[in-house]
Amino acid sequence: MSDEKDNVIFVGKKAFMNYVSGVVMQFTTQEADEIVVKARGNNISRAVDVALISSTKFLDNQIEVKDIQIDLEDLENKNQKPVKVSTIEITLVKKK
Amino acid sequence: MSDEKDNVIFVGKKAFMNYVSGVVMQFTTQEADEIVVKARGNNISRAVDVALISSTKFLDNQIEVKDIQIDLEDLENKNQKPVKVSTIEITLVKKK
Repeated sequence: MSDEKDNVIFVGKKAFMNYVSGVVMQFTTQEADEIVVKARGNNISRAVDVALISSTKFLDNQIEVKDIQIDLEDLENKNQKPVKVSTIEITLVKKK
Repeated sequence: MSDEKDNVIFVGKKAFMNYVSGVVMQFTTQEADEIVVKARGNNISRAVDVALISSTKFLDNQIEVKDIQIDLEDLENKNQKPVKVSTIEITLVKKK
């Protein structure tokens, strides 16, 4: 998973509203047509919150969930041991 | 969300493997064709783990993710105040 592209919001441990305003700003001031909200592990619940609060509370009737993908990603822990971590990608799009 | 139906696994705070074995058992001994893994709030991350570990580690090539829905549900907190909580429903199906 890459978070380098402009239309990706990678949800981590920052304050919740940072991510919500990131989504809202990209759809409004940046005029994005599509945003992908991504997260790993325990942050998956937060990513769902970000997607739902952005689309219902802040951009109601303007954006919708287009697709949700879940997957396992291979990472290394601190001891260089391979571990599998769940990921989510929620694609939000502007309603036509 | 109801967890009364046989083909629903509602993921809460029990030990993780309880839910995984619940999914695996229903597909094997109960011969279910479809299971819905549901969760609310912080348990959403666990529900994703349950769905992915069941489908890749235990029933690899036998079941797959058919659909994922996320929504906001209206609940009441302890003080009878209305609160919105995120929910997820992951539908797993036997591969044809």
